[in-house]
Amino acid sequence: MSKFHGVDYFGLDGLFDEEELLVRSTVRQFVDERILPDIEDHYRKGTFPSAAIPAMADLGLFGATLPPAYGCAGMNNVAYGLAMQELERGDSAIRSFASVQSSLVMYPIFAYGTEDQKRTWLPRLASGKSIGCFGLTEPDFGSNPGGMLTRAEHTSDGFLINGAKMWITNGTVADVAVVWAKLDNVIRGFLLEKGTPGFTAPEMKGKHSLRASVTSELVFQDVHIPADHLLPLGEGLRAPLACLSQARYGIAWGAIGSAMACYHAALDYAGSRIQFGKPIGAFQLTQAKLVDMVSEITKAQLLCLQLGRLKDSGQVRFQQISLAKRNNVHQALKIAREARTILGANGILDEYPVMRHAANLESVLTYEGTHEMHTLIVGEDLTGIPAYT
Amino acid sequence: MSKFHGVDYFGLDGLFDEEELLVRSTVRQFVDERILPDIEDHYRKGTFPSAAIPAMADLGLFGATLPPAYGCAGMNNVAYGLAMQELERGDSAIRSFASVQSSLVMYPIFAYGTEDQKRTWLPRLASGKSIGCFGLTEPDFGSNPGGMLTRAEHTSDGFLINGAKMWITNGTVADVAVVWAKLDNVIRGFLLEKGTPGFTAPEMKGKHSLRASVTSELVFQDVHIPADHLLPLGEGLRAPLACLSQARYGIAWGAIGSAMACYHAALDYAGSRIQFGKPIGAFQLTQAKLVDMVSEITKAQLLCLQLGRLKDSGQVRFQQISLAKRNNVHQALKIAREARTILGANGILDEYPVMRHAANLESVLTYEGTHEMHTLIVGEDLTGIPAYT
Amino acid sequence: MSKFHGVDYFGLDGLFDEEELLVRSTVRQFVDERILPDIEDHYRKGTFPSAAIPAMADLGLFGATLPPAYGCAGMNNVAYGLAMQELERGDSAIRSFASVQSSLVMYPIFAYGTEDQKRTWLPRLASGKSIGCFGLTEPDFGSNPGGMLTRAEHTSDGFLINGAKMWITNGTVADVAVVWAKLDNVIRGFLLEKGTPGFTAPEMKGKHSLRASVTSELVFQDVHIPADHLLPLGEGLRAPLACLSQARYGIAWGAIGSAMACYHAALDYAGSRIQFGKPIGAFQLTQAKLVDMVSEITKAQLLCLQLGRLKDSGQVRFQQISLAKRNNVHQALKIAREARTILGANGILDEYPVMRHAANLESVLTYEGTHEMHTLIVGEDLTGIPAYT
Amino acid sequence: MSKFHGVDYFGLDGLFDEEELLVRSTVRQFVDERILPDIEDHYRKGTFPSAAIPAMADLGLFGATLPPAYGCAGMNNVAYGLAMQELERGDSAIRSFASVQSSLVMYPIFAYGTEDQKRTWLPRLASGKSIGCFGLTEPDFGSNPGGMLTRAEHTSDGFLINGAKMWITNGTVADVAVVWAKLDNVIRGFLLEKGTPGFTAPEMKGKHSLRASVTSELVFQDVHIPADHLLPLGEGLRAPLACLSQARYGIAWGAIGSAMACYHAALDYAGSRIQFGKPIGAFQLTQAKLVDMVSEITKAQLLCLQLGRLKDSGQVRFQQISLAKRNNVHQALKIAREARTILGANGILDEYPVMRHAANLESVLTYEGTHEMHTLIVGEDLTGIPAYT
Repeated sequence: MSKFHGVDYFGLDGLFDEEELLVRSTVRQFVDERILPDIEDHYRKGTFPSAAIPAMADLGLFGATLPPAYGCAGMNNVAYGLAMQELERGDSAIRSFASVQSSLVMYPIFAYGTEDQKRTWLPRLASGKSIGCFGLTEPDFGSNPGGMLTRAEHTSDGFLINGAKMWITNGTVADVAVVWAKLDNVIRGFLLEKGTPGFTAPEMKGKHSLRASVTSELVFQDVHIPADHLLPLGEGLRAPLACLSQARYGIAWGAIGSAMACYHAALDYAGSRIQFGKPIGAFQLTQAKLVDMVSEITKAQLLCLQLGRLKDSGQVRFQQISLAKRNNVHQALKIAREARTILGANGILDEYPVMRHAANLESVLTYEGTHEMHTLIVGEDLTGIPAYT
Repeated sequence: MSKFHGVDYFGLDGLFDEEELLVRSTVRQFVDERILPDIEDHYRKGTFPSAAIPAMADLGLFGATLPPAYGCAGMNNVAYGLAMQELERGDSAIRSFASVQSSLVMYPIFAYGTEDQKRTWLPRLASGKSIGCFGLTEPDFGSNPGGMLTRAEHTSDGFLINGAKMWITNGTVADVAVVWAKLDNVIRGFLLEKGTPGFTAPEMKGKHSLRASVTSELVFQDVHIPADHLLPLGEGLRAPLACLSQARYGIAWGAIGSAMACYHAALDYAGSRIQFGKPIGAFQLTQAKLVDMVSEITKAQLLCLQLGRLKDSGQVRFQQISLAKRNNVHQALKIAREARTILGANGILDEYPVMRHAANLESVLTYEGTHEMHTLIVGEDLTGIPAYT
Repeated sequence: MSKFHGVDYFGLDGLFDEEELLVRSTVRQFVDERILPDIEDHYRKGTFPSAAIPAMADLGLFGATLPPAYGCAGMNNVAYGLAMQELERGDSAIRSFASVQSSLVMYPIFAYGTEDQKRTWLPRLASGKSIGCFGLTEPDFGSNPGGMLTRAEHTSDGFLINGAKMWITNGTVADVAVVWAKLDNVIRGFLLEKGTPGFTAPEMKGKHSLRASVTSELVFQDVHIPADHLLPLGEGLRAPLACLSQARYGIAWGAIGSAMACYHAALDYAGSRIQFGKPIGAFQLTQAKLVDMVSEITKAQLLCLQLGRLKDSGQVRFQQISLAKRNNVHQALKIAREARTILGANGILDEYPVMRHAANLESVLTYEGTHEMHTLIVGEDLTGIPAYT
Repeated sequence: MSKFHGVDYFGLDGLFDEEELLVRSTVRQFVDERILPDIEDHYRKGTFPSAAIPAMADLGLFGATLPPAYGCAGMNNVAYGLAMQELERGDSAIRSFASVQSSLVMYPIFAYGTEDQKRTWLPRLASGKSIGCFGLTEPDFGSNPGGMLTRAEHTSDGFLINGAKMWITNGTVADVAVVWAKLDNVIRGFLLEKGTPGFTAPEMKGKHSLRASVTSELVFQDVHIPADHLLPLGEGLRAPLACLSQARYGIAWGAIGSAMACYHAALDYAGSRIQFGKPIGAFQLTQAKLVDMVSEITKAQLLCLQLGRLKDSGQVRFQQISLAKRNNVHQALKIAREARTILGANGILDEYPVMRHAANLESVLTYEGTHEMHTLIVGEDLTGIPAYT
């Protein structure tokens, strides 16, 4: 397959500044050199390419938008978005890893933690020396996490937690879990360290998607948490939802990366695969698919860029992020599926990244708010009427 | 119906400058006051609201991007685009009128004409005192105009033209026609004045779309054209195609206007129509439609804005315009159709603008390059392989 | 345009019996000779081709499945369905006329009426000497007719009715209206004769669809109805809903007729319209559209045939009818829209039936249960859970 | 998950005869008991459940429609189709195995072979004691097999074959291969036995689809084939294409099975998964998906049944089979994808069959004629114009 040089049909490169372009090219190279060579192996075996973690840390990809004072890169949101795009061009598992570490672990510590908590955890997490996970979803509470059953009780010197979480990226390998539980009937965040008695995190098996990602259950049986492991500043469902908004922002960008990888593979193949004496890219039915792909990639790029500028200027609304997450993942999935058909029979082989991306995007469509939940979030915003129930 | 205040889900207003916003608000008000009150009457009767022409001229909408030296407004392309958007929110016929006058008549005179031709025609056309039309398409040559049969021959003092054109907006009412014909087997443009012997322009009847627009045939039977009515600077098919690109740019913006009108009607209705004890906007199936609409409007807006910035900086490629025309009209048509379903039975009434827009967009989807032709134009650009034949 | 010889890609003609085929060919000829020549004129003017009513009656199309004892043809449901298909190939207004007369007027009289009512009305209606209409829908109660406000009160010798209905096909021209009103808070059906004091039926204007159909309001101001004009046997919402099921059955067949008309026009055009030196039917993008059309027509035919056989054997369930109505109208509308694009610019002209059918089908999609309502009817049937509110 | 009892929304069971229903119920039970318990294991490991072969043979599934004289079941085509449906409800690999054995190996021997060849091979293949494969597709000739490079030359006592085939189901495990090669520039079929010197059949690895199926290359290096291993009666591309038509017929039925499995899983889940206090089947967005699924399953069933009746009466045309294969696989894939979204995050787990079916259907969409090739086959049939090149 030819080298990837980006997809830029509408001259968007002229809208990025130098640093943004530098982040993109650096991460692109990292993915080409460190991720793509063995990602299909990891996918097949169901393992995460953890050898790449230090390099990701060196690139400043963990907590990338947080301040340098905590060991972070202090990127703007567009640079961060471009990094997520490139990571997901490698595999959704890679971007998911960075999203969890950044948006779901470091962000809540930064936003809701004490200065001590920040100084303790953020540099470790930024450097990749510690890995984090985010425990919100429960087996019976996916789209409405507010119904969670996990409970914290006050003890003399802290809290006792009981309950269980599911679908937790990195749970098994995490050094620290940001766990959400109801304390006095209010949702609160707790930092729970690996090895704490009563806390186990078995890996979930049997996945047909995101196979290069570690997905786990978290089980809490009378787990004692010290008093200073409560995140003091976030209360109520709003606190974890704000983390999800951070993560969704990165997903919206990341989906473009998956779409680009599939489009690139399909365009390449359409140019070289000969049938009936000419490249299949010469057939009208193929061209129609390619044109739809590049149209939707371009539109997704424009959505993300504007979203990033709004985020950097403090004007973004979470419903705008929902719209972009919903649109971009849905379009990426459609693109992956169409790309598969252009590749014909070869499209089912792991020589080509297309079915892996298509399978991954099934998870991405679902996690951090399903397509339907984002429909209803934006729908409420448009009509003023909630229609969730 | 509630007053229209625009659709801006992604904060794009922050990306327009003051003049651009002023043009938009002025044209919006013009449409509210001068077009919307009687457009359904005109549509029903099959007449163009010609009383509005002077006001459109006063707003600088004819040849809007051409220099003030020729009596034109000298707007940038984004301001012009916003004006087209607002006009088409009124009716595709209004925007079509402005597109023809600006992109298909004034533009070729400006780009391919002599200084005399420019000084003679541009101020008249800018002021709306003269109306123009553009004769390229022939009954048997729609998607491949290069096959045209209309021929010009040299005479002692000019040219003799024979042939026929079809689907010519404003043909019957035009004071001047920019007519494309083959001279010495090369396509050339000629200025043909109303009343020239042998030239007739009967109106086409029986339209189910663009009924508020005048659509005509042009018939040339031994029509004599003086030598100085040749546009000297444009030769070959490239010359009229460049005009089409100008027009398509305006169409891409205009389609957003149609989409906005339909979305606005649907959102309004969804908020006030009660069934089963609540507004229909409270139902999931309705919200899903509204969210799809606002997503596609936002994406179309972003495409056009970037296209306009590229055009203003001289970087735009015609294939980019094709992508935007193709996408935006297609999406606008889908939005109009979905809006119709939200309006239920009321959606078929002319109290609501929706079926009129939907019907108009059938023409807009087809003219200035069908959806399929733009697929193949962009397809060639992506693959390097033409697939038209 | 070439003569229409039906669309039968899957050899379904072998599944019809002789009488069914005879009904089809007879009605097909009637439509070719009596409807198609001036239907576009009627559509443009907004008039129903009432001159064709006697011929329709002669063909046995009114109350076609009711017994000969009442002057009816006693056809089976498949023959009746084929007749509806052919009528709607002419125009949805023609089929609507027959549906209302048969399913919404004669059926309830037959099913819920006294022997006297049947003997009085059915022969007249079968012969087309009387025209009927069906008053159920109210301005604020479309999808949930059970909320109707029209009320009947007992008087010494009958009933007093007050209220209003809307979207009533044939209301203005009907000799008798089957009106549904709440009596003692239970929905009951009444026969209301034209000219009864206090009863007016103004025609609704400004339609962009079903323009060849008469659509009316019904207004009841202290309208006195004699005691023997109550339909004694139907009580509750179930009674009018059973009529709607009859009508929907005919619509499911009728939509195939619209689809066939559009497909036939498109295939014909694709074979004769030359661009780039060959018929446009030679292009892959055109073939893909035609193949989708014929696939969906074939599937719709199979649904209807099986539905008809189930109906004839007394096994049909109303939810099955909902599925077929929903599917067939939706697919017919998609086919009409695709056909329009194959016809290119010519597709907007009334020389071709395509935009007329597309516009009509907007009404057909909506009336007798919107697409969404049928989604929820079948959805309830599948899940056991109502989701209407 | 609840036991599967079929999907029959339109009362089609009343159209099958007793034997057909018996075949269906027997195969259904076989799949429930012998395939479903370990199919995900096989899929994960990339192995075919070969232990089930004898039971499939006992059920008469190999060469099921061929005469008992050759050890075959002599089923009609509808019974055979129902068997394929049930097998593919288990996994596309199981149905593929039966399709290859029946349609691509036994059929050509039956149709093009000598009496000796039939007597030698058909009973062995029917009993599952021998396994066959079909070598037509080559690495560079997928959609146009007529361009094949594999060549046979005459030798003194037979033929010498050189070339290679790809995407050959069962190649590695087959005892006999029906190989198509050009002899004197005419495509001919040869029986090639396992172990013949120069013939190797390495398994293809790295599949993301049909993982429970063995897919192989066939490589022929100076392979000597005895004279009596030529299939004498089939010449030209028509011969293997007729085999493909047989196989496609089975695929059209099989795809219904995949769709049913996914629909069943989704309906089941929608009824038991609670969110926001009610089953997700109570939400409008879920119901809309389920209704679309059951509509398309019903339509696919009707297509297949009519196809089978036409086939049994000798009236079927290969283009009709193309339409059904194209439609049914495409719809099954859409159903699988929608089912995945109803299952939410759980949809990616191998506890549920949905992603396995979705992945398999990517192959099924592509093999035996891609979706696009069937578009063009039917397109040529409709327009009379080939558009392949």
